[in-house]
Amino acid sequence: MRIALDAMGGDYAPGPIVQGAVEAVRNLNGTEVVLVGDRARIEPVLAECGGVSGGLDIFHCTQTVGMDESPVEALRRKRDNSISRCWELMASGQVTALVSAGSTGAVVAAGLFQKRFLAGVKRPGIAVVLPTATGPCVMLDVGANMAAKPEHLFQYGVMGSLYAQHILKIDEPTIALMNVGTEEQKGNELAKETHTLFDSSHLKDRFLGNIEGRDIYKGTAHVIVCDGFVGNVVLKVCEGLVELVLNHSAEEMLARLPRDQHATARSAFDALIRRYDYSQYGGAPLLGIDGICIICHGASGASAIRNAIRVAGTFAQHHINDLIVGELKCRS
Amino acid sequence: MRIALDAMGGDYAPGPIVQGAVEAVRNLNGTEVVLVGDRARIEPVLAECGGVSGGLDIFHCTQTVGMDESPVEALRRKRDNSISRCWELMASGQVTALVSAGSTGAVVAAGLFQKRFLAGVKRPGIAVVLPTATGPCVMLDVGANMAAKPEHLFQYGVMGSLYAQHILKIDEPTIALMNVGTEEQKGNELAKETHTLFDSSHLKDRFLGNIEGRDIYKGTAHVIVCDGFVGNVVLKVCEGLVELVLNHSAEEMLARLPRDQHATARSAFDALIRRYDYSQYGGAPLLGIDGICIICHGASGASAIRNAIRVAGTFAQHHINDLIVGELKCRS
Repeated sequence: MRIALDAMGGDYAPGPIVQGAVEAVRNLNGTEVVLVGDRARIEPVLAECGGVSGGLDIFHCTQTVGMDESPVEALRRKRDNSISRCWELMASGQVTALVSAGSTGAVVAAGLFQKRFLAGVKRPGIAVVLPTATGPCVMLDVGANMAAKPEHLFQYGVMGSLYAQHILKIDEPTIALMNVGTEEQKGNELAKETHTLFDSSHLKDRFLGNIEGRDIYKGTAHVIVCDGFVGNVVLKVCEGLVELVLNHSAEEMLARLPRDQHATARSAFDALIRRYDYSQYGGAPLLGIDGICIICHGASGASAIRNAIRVAGTFAQHHINDLIVGELKCRS
Repeated sequence: MRIALDAMGGDYAPGPIVQGAVEAVRNLNGTEVVLVGDRARIEPVLAECGGVSGGLDIFHCTQTVGMDESPVEALRRKRDNSISRCWELMASGQVTALVSAGSTGAVVAAGLFQKRFLAGVKRPGIAVVLPTATGPCVMLDVGANMAAKPEHLFQYGVMGSLYAQHILKIDEPTIALMNVGTEEQKGNELAKETHTLFDSSHLKDRFLGNIEGRDIYKGTAHVIVCDGFVGNVVLKVCEGLVELVLNHSAEEMLARLPRDQHATARSAFDALIRRYDYSQYGGAPLLGIDGICIICHGASGASAIRNAIRVAGTFAQHHINDLIVGELKCRS
């Protein structure tokens, strides 16, 4: 399978991005990667990595969308940017999937510009896999859709569920609606109407109803649906808070323990950082588009990129998009 | 000052609630508390606490709103519930403030039924004080208003700011809008319009613009405004996540450290739990009502209740409500 990789996207691009591509091509059978970006910056990294015998191409382009730029404006102004080029390669069938650790807003906006939604899908959504006390769960949307309607959230339930089933290998995944309380009549209008939609749908047996913020990490549900504003805020709160709490824990612990125990304490914190590191799950898919788009964290290292490329491959092998179209068609 | 305390509200009521009242009356000069609830359940606790010489009354009522009941329904069905009685005591001027660790939904609903908003206030909001890396910050609304409009969020900025200034003693508090990115045009319609309102207001010099979820705990802003749905979800995510991360940290640490270091490790975690314990800040005020209402966490112990009673007193001494009315009047 051939995958376009935005070599210029990410806080440390192109270094770890290119390195991740090299690792993927070396380790994942049948994977070919097109590195999209500035040839002059990509080639030295490739040389450093020792190169590979085939499976890696460069698609040269001259521009990059910065992490702090307004996505829509940047995409309009910089026609030869690496993100748009990745989408174009997918639209023209030259690649099956794209992976980017660049500006999430720009990746989504470039995708939405093309209006290549899957048949029956009203609005694509970004799904993120989170570690919980009982295993991974999928939360969506985390930032693609700022004006969600009940039917969008319902479709996120359908799509997230198929993702959980085929990528995370969860049989009969349960679905819950992010809300401010567990009673049925809780929440804003969007939440109330979405609850009613699920309750009268073919998913009703797997729909657990509302869950609260504190339930996410308990692993109460396998799929959590919410609008993109709430999901994005929640995701970033989690990220910030895990970091802060772990830092404070390390501080308190090291201040109290004798010096000869410091190495042990540090190894415990390294294990914790790995436990909460969602890059292990290989990036966040933009579900509902006609194609495969995996969005990685800006701070992605080589292993996160390699995992994202692996997930893109699994996504294709399991024909997730066909399953989405099929399920939405049956039920509409 | 005389304060109505919902003796029946809270996961462990009436025990720690009554105990908190006793401690407040003993330690806070000029504080009188009316314990609102079932006399037969309150009196034994009072006897256990050793009692006080004056300053404590019981207002007997027969019903309690359960934590899991639908607030609106419960308030209609149980006319003699302790929460409504607290509000009635305040409405009739028999007390200056009320404190409850009962169902937040019921406390807010009972207050909104009375429609006793401060002059100029469109919708009250619940403000919560959170610990950050640089000191406390105020976030509001965290659950009173499920259909927020831009002008509500703007007023939350005004009210939260006065609270930060006079209760948390922060000079010139900065204000930020919870959003999905820092650029001005980010977010949903509510966020974009609210941004414009702040930018063209008398608060513009203290308005930092948008912040993201990860900035809350960094202490980027002193006052964070958001709609009640987002605020409530975020608050509960934080609660759940801090608990989970600290538990996991303790597990990893104890599994690795030799037995003779376990007591030291536990003392570090106790210090961390205190650091993230927001009961130290004395409950969440429902800002914008004509009166003083402090909502405590359901799991509140005696010290959280005592702190909430203290904050209610400070709130009255600083005439926060007059300041709110004054500022909204000047600027309307």
